[in-house]
Amino acid sequence: MENKEMDEHYMKIALKLASRGSGFVNPNPLVGAVVVNNGEIIGAGYHKFFGGPHAEVYALKEAGEKAKGADIYVTLEPCSHYGKTPPCAKAIVKAGIKRVVIGAIDPNPLVSGKGVKILKDANVEVVTGVMADKVIKMNEIFINYIINKTPFVILKSAVSLDGKIATSAGKSKWITGEESRLKVHEIRNRVMAIMVGIGTVIADNPLLTTRLKENCKSPKAVIVDSKLRIPVASKIFTTIKDREIIVACTEDFDREKSKQLLSMGVNVLICSKDGYGRVDLKYLIRKLGEHGIDSILLEGGGSLNFSALQCQVVDKVFYFIAPKLIGGRNAKTSVEGDGFEELNESVKVKEVTVENIGQDIMIKAYIDKQQ
Amino acid sequence: MENKEMDEHYMKIALKLASRGSGFVNPNPLVGAVVVNNGEIIGAGYHKFFGGPHAEVYALKEAGEKAKGADIYVTLEPCSHYGKTPPCAKAIVKAGIKRVVIGAIDPNPLVSGKGVKILKDANVEVVTGVMADKVIKMNEIFINYIINKTPFVILKSAVSLDGKIATSAGKSKWITGEESRLKVHEIRNRVMAIMVGIGTVIADNPLLTTRLKENCKSPKAVIVDSKLRIPVASKIFTTIKDREIIVACTEDFDREKSKQLLSMGVNVLICSKDGYGRVDLKYLIRKLGEHGIDSILLEGGGSLNFSALQCQVVDKVFYFIAPKLIGGRNAKTSVEGDGFEELNESVKVKEVTVENIGQDIMIKAYIDKQQ
Repeated sequence: MENKEMDEHYMKIALKLASRGSGFVNPNPLVGAVVVNNGEIIGAGYHKFFGGPHAEVYALKEAGEKAKGADIYVTLEPCSHYGKTPPCAKAIVKAGIKRVVIGAIDPNPLVSGKGVKILKDANVEVVTGVMADKVIKMNEIFINYIINKTPFVILKSAVSLDGKIATSAGKSKWITGEESRLKVHEIRNRVMAIMVGIGTVIADNPLLTTRLKENCKSPKAVIVDSKLRIPVASKIFTTIKDREIIVACTEDFDREKSKQLLSMGVNVLICSKDGYGRVDLKYLIRKLGEHGIDSILLEGGGSLNFSALQCQVVDKVFYFIAPKLIGGRNAKTSVEGDGFEELNESVKVKEVTVENIGQDIMIKAYIDKQQ
Repeated sequence: MENKEMDEHYMKIALKLASRGSGFVNPNPLVGAVVVNNGEIIGAGYHKFFGGPHAEVYALKEAGEKAKGADIYVTLEPCSHYGKTPPCAKAIVKAGIKRVVIGAIDPNPLVSGKGVKILKDANVEVVTGVMADKVIKMNEIFINYIINKTPFVILKSAVSLDGKIATSAGKSKWITGEESRLKVHEIRNRVMAIMVGIGTVIADNPLLTTRLKENCKSPKAVIVDSKLRIPVASKIFTTIKDREIIVACTEDFDREKSKQLLSMGVNVLICSKDGYGRVDLKYLIRKLGEHGIDSILLEGGGSLNFSALQCQVVDKVFYFIAPKLIGGRNAKTSVEGDGFEELNESVKVKEVTVENIGQDIMIKAYIDKQQ
């Protein structure tokens, strides 16, 4: 194999390992590492859970003495600082690694390049930028959080081909197929929080849990409820032992309801108001970031979705489109509110990809923030 | 080449030839033919325009004397009857063709298999069913018309990712990109008629013409206008010299307007009423079939689209989805009306295919009539 081909071969393995931590390392990055000696993988590891050992630690430990003179492939630049674990760059030097192949440089401006410097200063050969785009994509949540200190917001909607999220009689179970719904649970499993509007809680009374066969955890739940209209008997509150529930309101909240919610263990977050007297989502998102939440799956109704798009807090969208036509001038759609009156005001999306999910189509795209 | 491989090779060429007649042969089928002798194509032809010579006639004429002992590949079963042209099956026998490879048997139950019988009776070798699925797909309009005597109805809609066909202020120029709009003109060029509701005429004042660089013809225009509200100054009437314009109304029509329209050369078609007192689309579609129209592109607003879906006259849908989010609880969507209240009443589509058209996504699907 050519060097480049070989590097990509092992980096792919490291990427695959990295992805196994998905949903468990937030707000840390997904990282994978393999140690290779004479074409043989002698150590492999990945960042398994938040605060746990780094990928390099596992890989070097497995390689043991054989790491001397070996190459290490690591998806993200080895760390240079004493945090929850000692710096990996130093561990690599100490293990006698000859060559380090790095996917992407650490995006954290405070430490970026410092790991590489430690390695080079110790005369270790360093190659960077191997499949960096894949590493960056995989860590889009982490990178956004490191740079902006706000959560990465993913808007998800399940619609009919004619754009409806429910029939005119409010029926929405189920528009999309089983495979799409499973996919949504996989996305829920990857994020730290799930957000809905009070309208959805009242209409659907959802649990907002992750339902997968294994490796399953339910994200925190954030309910946007300006006046605290949420019924205390809502199903969601049955899950409070297993995860944090945050209800975001404005100063116009119902004091009595607030007391009840607090006694149930619910976090009531009082937010500033937007121009309509509702929760200012930009404020809420910033607060959730300060609260350590790096990612949110927005499963709001059309009203909340529009507000989120309008105040530009959305980063990515997932549309699951079912092969059916529902019709109805009063049937709800995925983005409502006042809407954008002019086409040039509409929110553009980019990097659109399409995938078949069972009988449905999944459209994935990023919000174009340059517009 | 193996026999099967060779047959498919030449059938593909015949199919490609056949497609050149697209938009010009209705309500006849698209047919292509090649004559092959010793691996050499010695004659080729296709059905160029309605009433014109059949594909086999061109191909045999080009082959001339060399057709003796040769093979002919023809996408559709050669005809057996004296119509606008003499029967091709007899011409093939007369030319001394040794072997006939046929894509699909003629779907017309009155003549199906008769061409093959003439050939076999004359001891010509016949192979059928080579790439028949492609031939059938290519002639879906013709086949539907032969069997049902009603036009094949294609619903087309251009929507944002959140399902809107206009902003809340009614702006719709343009939601989709240039490439999608070109594609719509290509579809218009293939059908015999284009249908819209009076709402669209009043809101957008469209020309409903086909705008392509070459080989371009505008389909007949059908406007569904129960009470004849159409303004006589509508732009569409400037095109009346070049194509038929049909305005479909109910018996509640405006007599004065009717006189004006008739004097302008417009066809006013009085239809029976549906349960809402509007034009009964099932009746209208049947009448248009009797009028010789084999295909309709339905570019109606949400109200007409829903009526057409509800009375099950739609066969195929094209959705052009633009990478933008428009929002708006009052923004129009592609299918409105009352809508289907229960999800199991919704109209299912099948054979869904997705294609990138410029920055947009084109979803093509067939209405599942078995539901």
